Amino acid sequence: MIRIYGDSISGNCLKVKWVAERLSIDHDWVEIDILKGETNTDSFLTINPFGQVPVVAFDDGRTLAQSNAIITYLAEGSDLIPEEAFERAKVLEWMFWEQYSHETAIAVRRFQKLYLKKNDDEIDPHLMAKGRRALGRMELALLGNDWIAGGEAMTLADISLLAYTRLAHEGGFDVSEFPAVHGWIARCERELGLPHLHEVTDVQV
Amino acid sequence: MIRIYGDSISGNCLKVKWVAERLSIDHDWVEIDILKGETNTDSFLTINPFGQVPVVAFDDGRTLAQSNAIITYLAEGSDLIPEEAFERAKVLEWMFWEQYSHETAIAVRRFQKLYLKKNDDEIDPHLMAKGRRALGRMELALLGNDWIAGGEAMTLADISLLAYTRLAHEGGFDVSEFPAVHGWIARCERELGLPHLHEVTDVQV
Ligand SMILES: N[C@@H](CCC(=O)N[C@@H](CS)C(=O)NCC(=O)O)C(=O)O
Ligand SMILES: N[C@@H](CCC(=O)N[C@@H](CS)C(=O)NCC(=O)O)C(=O)O
Repeated sequence: MIRIYGDSISGNCLKVKWVAERLSIDHDWVEIDILKGETNTDSFLTINPFGQVPVVAFDDGRTLAQSNAIITYLAEGSDLIPEEAFERAKVLEWMFWEQYSHETAIAVRRFQKLYLKKNDDEIDPHLMAKGRRALGRMELALLGNDWIAGGEAMTLADISLLAYTRLAHEGGFDVSEFPAVHGWIARCERELGLPHLHEVTDVQV
Repeated sequence: MIRIYGDSISGNCLKVKWVAERLSIDHDWVEIDILKGETNTDSFLTINPFGQVPVVAFDDGRTLAQSNAIITYLAEGSDLIPEEAFERAKVLEWMFWEQYSHETAIAVRRFQKLYLKKNDDEIDPHLMAKGRRALGRMELALLGNDWIAGGEAMTLADISLLAYTRLAHEGGFDVSEFPAVHGWIARCERELGLPHLHEVTDVQV
């Protein structure tokens, strides 16, 4: 049994939940409300000195943070990580890119718009440009490929990138401009048994 | 033989060089000048559609980007990555943290100050605060530990974090405020056979 501390509004936290569910890993979900400051309480900081969710606690008391490190650990040996060394490396390449070039634009703009209720003119315009560049990069990778890392099956790279790409419209991004990305979102949602967030625009593609 | 495309001023690129040297991996270094825009030429973009260094090209033409993904691939099976699954996960946790919470403050402020020649008042003040928080987090981890991920030997987590922590003073950070970090920099430098950048202040510690 593992305990996942997470906020349900956070894509980084949902990655962990999806992987645990997909791999039938027995887990408890402990809801931590970021907006109420629950990541900054003393009791939470003893669990995760980084002061962020997600963090996972194991039966023996050990803890692990960083969404992409957690899902890599949980999925070790499963079909979500390719066996061949270079294919594994490509999955990790996309996961580092997700944290560096994708989440930092798309998740950040979504947070400011949806939760901090900022107007567009109060949001750093670089976030829109950077996020659109990230979606364009994914579009390029998905032209002719079903999965982002290029193989025959969904991997952790897809799950990691799905988390915020699927919510990009909440950050003001128009995913229908990126048809391959749009189709890939639906493909991942089907594979993970998630509700389909883009039902209407999907008909037009 | 591998070909490493990198800019010698970039810590992300140096990580790859250090790991290749440490593991005696036969390599060519191809200098790419970021400031001259050489990451944005058509010929470079065919090597790395992400438009960034470092990127590594293998004999068979395959390429891999993202510094931390590259060093993980190169070091697979070496003593730079622990064998035990949870210890491996901890190394990856620090590497994801490096890209998300450390590099994005310390490397970015250094770049603006040293290469874009911005004055302190032209630099987003959040970068200093965020970078100091990151150094404080490392200090906490290094109190009583020789290596950042807590084990008995240097790992990829140390190499990844060394890259910009060692250059933090160029970004206006005062590492001598963080004595455990300061000692750890010297330890990593010795282990990697690098010149000692903090000779003078070191005497005072
Ligand atoms: N790199 C981390 C990012 C974690 C992160 O940014 N967590 C946010 C929610 S998405 C958080 O806890 N924010 C509250 C805070 O920083 O106090 C990961 O991938 O897990
Ligand atoms: N997340 C990437 C970051 C790479 C990166 O930011 N590269 C910079 C140099 S440190 C670069 O190529 N900048 C030039 C550009 O973006 O055009 C990694 O870890 O490799």
